[in-house]
Amino acid sequence: MPEKIYNKMRSKLTLLFFLIFAVSIIKAQTQRPNIIVFLVDDMGWQDTSLPFWDRITTLNKIYHTPNMELLARQGMKFTNAYAAPVCTPSRVAMLTGVNPAHSGITNWTSTDKDKNTDATDDQFLPSKWNFNGLSPVAGRANTMYATPFPKLLKDVGYFTIHVGKAHWAAAGTPGANPYNMGFTVNIAGHAAGNPQSYLPKENYGNIVGKATARAVPDMEEYFGGETFLTEALTLEALKALDAPIKNKQPFYLNMAHYAVHVPIQGDKRFLQKYLDQGIDSVEAKYASLIEGMDKSLGDIMDYLKIKGVEKNTVIIFMSDNGGLSLTNPGERGGNQNNVQNLPLKAGKGSVYEGGIRVPMIVKYPAMVKPASVTSQYVIIEDFFPSILALAGVKNFKTVQQVDGKSFVPILKNPLTINEERILIWHYPNKWGNMQEIGTNYFSAVRKGDWKLIYNLRNGKRELYNLRTDIGETKDIASENLQKVNQLTNALGVQLKQWNAPMPIRKSDRKPVGWP
Amino acid sequence: MPEKIYNKMRSKLTLLFFLIFAVSIIKAQTQRPNIIVFLVDDMGWQDTSLPFWDRITTLNKIYHTPNMELLARQGMKFTNAYAAPVCTPSRVAMLTGVNPAHSGITNWTSTDKDKNTDATDDQFLPSKWNFNGLSPVAGRANTMYATPFPKLLKDVGYFTIHVGKAHWAAAGTPGANPYNMGFTVNIAGHAAGNPQSYLPKENYGNIVGKATARAVPDMEEYFGGETFLTEALTLEALKALDAPIKNKQPFYLNMAHYAVHVPIQGDKRFLQKYLDQGIDSVEAKYASLIEGMDKSLGDIMDYLKIKGVEKNTVIIFMSDNGGLSLTNPGERGGNQNNVQNLPLKAGKGSVYEGGIRVPMIVKYPAMVKPASVTSQYVIIEDFFPSILALAGVKNFKTVQQVDGKSFVPILKNPLTINEERILIWHYPNKWGNMQEIGTNYFSAVRKGDWKLIYNLRNGKRELYNLRTDIGETKDIASENLQKVNQLTNALGVQLKQWNAPMPIRKSDRKPVGWP
Repeated sequence: MPEKIYNKMRSKLTLLFFLIFAVSIIKAQTQRPNIIVFLVDDMGWQDTSLPFWDRITTLNKIYHTPNMELLARQGMKFTNAYAAPVCTPSRVAMLTGVNPAHSGITNWTSTDKDKNTDATDDQFLPSKWNFNGLSPVAGRANTMYATPFPKLLKDVGYFTIHVGKAHWAAAGTPGANPYNMGFTVNIAGHAAGNPQSYLPKENYGNIVGKATARAVPDMEEYFGGETFLTEALTLEALKALDAPIKNKQPFYLNMAHYAVHVPIQGDKRFLQKYLDQGIDSVEAKYASLIEGMDKSLGDIMDYLKIKGVEKNTVIIFMSDNGGLSLTNPGERGGNQNNVQNLPLKAGKGSVYEGGIRVPMIVKYPAMVKPASVTSQYVIIEDFFPSILALAGVKNFKTVQQVDGKSFVPILKNPLTINEERILIWHYPNKWGNMQEIGTNYFSAVRKGDWKLIYNLRNGKRELYNLRTDIGETKDIASENLQKVNQLTNALGVQLKQWNAPMPIRKSDRKPVGWP
Repeated sequence: MPEKIYNKMRSKLTLLFFLIFAVSIIKAQTQRPNIIVFLVDDMGWQDTSLPFWDRITTLNKIYHTPNMELLARQGMKFTNAYAAPVCTPSRVAMLTGVNPAHSGITNWTSTDKDKNTDATDDQFLPSKWNFNGLSPVAGRANTMYATPFPKLLKDVGYFTIHVGKAHWAAAGTPGANPYNMGFTVNIAGHAAGNPQSYLPKENYGNIVGKATARAVPDMEEYFGGETFLTEALTLEALKALDAPIKNKQPFYLNMAHYAVHVPIQGDKRFLQKYLDQGIDSVEAKYASLIEGMDKSLGDIMDYLKIKGVEKNTVIIFMSDNGGLSLTNPGERGGNQNNVQNLPLKAGKGSVYEGGIRVPMIVKYPAMVKPASVTSQYVIIEDFFPSILALAGVKNFKTVQQVDGKSFVPILKNPLTINEERILIWHYPNKWGNMQEIGTNYFSAVRKGDWKLIYNLRNGKRELYNLRTDIGETKDIASENLQKVNQLTNALGVQLKQWNAPMPIRKSDRKPVGWP
């Protein structure tokens, strides 16, 4: 061919090549996945029709969560996922990757600044934990200063949205405000750990003269109407997603429902069928809260499909601690003690499995095989490195040292097993005067199938094998002293290294020694 | 030169040309201006050290607003800018381009749904106005359904932020929520028209047992601290601007201060110097509110400069109605009646100049000549078409018919004069039992220098020439009956065409006739 034509073609090819290159850059940028953490509050491991154990339980038969079932069919179920025993420690661990014993945020933060929420005790003074919570700026008293991952996502161009319960820090500190955590949009998140009301007729608590610090902000549109809080938050979340989807900007949605935390109020859309089954009225209301939450999950999944972003969106379903199992009249349980999380022992606040084992599901069509299941144990601080890895964020800078491990290798292969990993729970606090088991001044450690419960009051130790005894019914410490000592030592070394807060004896005002 | 080299060069030139073309497209997209409306609440025309009249007044000498002075030196001062006599009608007119008489939103909306806020009257029943306010969705009772401009800006890629007072609609309706108006971010905007408190020590009203529907949302970070509300809102606004500036996305900021509305609380940063001047303590607090607002303006201007977006950002300074001139003890004025807006007559709520003439300044380096002044009259519904024109949004669709006219031609040439334009104010409502002049059941019309005041109670008419009598001191109706009849007719025809709400007589339950 003549050179002139050849060169002309080459010129065109150069242009074409450049175009392909440019388009591929743009595509690579837009192809970063959207990420949704769907975080439920106080939801127990069995509060669902999706079985997380090796059999279908009585509780699985009570609840209706078809959308969780669908999510599990489309993604991976984690049967050994853990959180901290109460909410703020879990939420902060998720945002920072730091274990509560390491962050010093071991209990829930107040709606007042500088207030230690530890209950009074005969033996111990309130612990010296970071009761003002997480702070994204340095130098604030009684906080942990750390870099939350939403800020890192925002820095690389993610559109970051928080909806619902925040509860990372005390009111009057920067951490009370989601805007300081790297969120571009905040809807209804503040310092409170529960909604004053789920009911639009009660304006979610915003009634003159009755409003407390738990009245839910930002929901005025629905006042006096028919929209249950869970639904209202979902509608607002979807509204907020319109902008990034339209602009082809990757988004991170922290869909942090207030449900299913107390006050246990019936969601009228679902309540009657549970009442018709003749179950306790409080439990029926609770089941309606669960189903309303599940509908929210379904609505979000439908929305993603309609918008055409389903395939490129990661959904991570999680709860922030085990299900409530208090025996106070009017709350869950009535006179039946600690049956709400069976086969697990105890509930929220406890380091037994009922307080810390939670439902977790991850859907990500580009990476996760549908209907897969992993039994590898993971913990809530793993969310930090995992989410950054999923978003492709590398070489990020944090002021904190991250304890969590990315679960992305597990997403790629559910048989990725690490039985050597050590998980730590630490609650050197007093939640209240309830006599729930494993609550108030306990630590625990898991390695492989073994779990040690350590009572900080008296150094008493229990050992369980979770493979054969998920209900922690049979303490086998005396038969396995070497294992007990190994795990005690691992716990003690780690707590010391992290300089974890410890209970303070009233007698000599000194902290109890390391395990 | 050899053909091969020539062709190689040509190939490179093609690529270069393409690159320039691509960059110019990207640049054109990013070069759409950022737009900030800096909207002050209840600020009078003379509540500033910047003279808006043809001389420096006593009031100009009291106030310190150096940043307004700077803004005027860098932009255009509008000496004949108008709003509606009260807040909701102005705010809705701005967002929709519709005159209050046309939208039927002629009075302020409640923090309760379905509540007509008209005060009781001996002669009239409450008017049938749209007391649920603006609705961005159809079919809601007692609302005006319209398309707000932030939605149109968002649709073309603007990052839209609302900060501060919203007050477009009653709680319990969609319009109470800025997210439904096309805002991507909302900070502290809801159904209330004033803050319960400006003071962080009072948590801006959020105190358990004391909180009313006016407690300011979204500000928990500052509870118990030292940050006056005006400053806190400014800090949050600048925080929200970081994302679009970083992403090179054009932004619209609706910086709608709660200041300087009641409660008149001293801003400690500025209060003492006013007290030292020996002026009335309430007026000293008011002056400190004004100066705090002015500092916010300066902080925003500084921020834009630091971020390098000053040249490409339009700032429009505006107030939503005239300054308060109530004579209630403890509020402004003490025993002195209606001197707060001198030389203007009356204040907020009135159709006399003191209630409707407001300070307005526009800075836009790419279009507006520094230190320019225009005397052309404009009105708050003009913001709608002006802002869309500034953003380059054409062929947009609205459900409402827009009454406002773009002031962009004036920005390009301050001598653009239209003496034929007719402006209408209409307040067929009763604000309260105060005996302020020109308040409760009044309409007004301006054409050229002429202004007609029409009393809806009795059809009584007053005529003023604003060029020679800005204070509306000399009623010249009897000497100019032809002008009076022309303007009455213009008012009547327009109100009828708009089907404006009218006072309803108690005697026969019928609306009073058109003027």
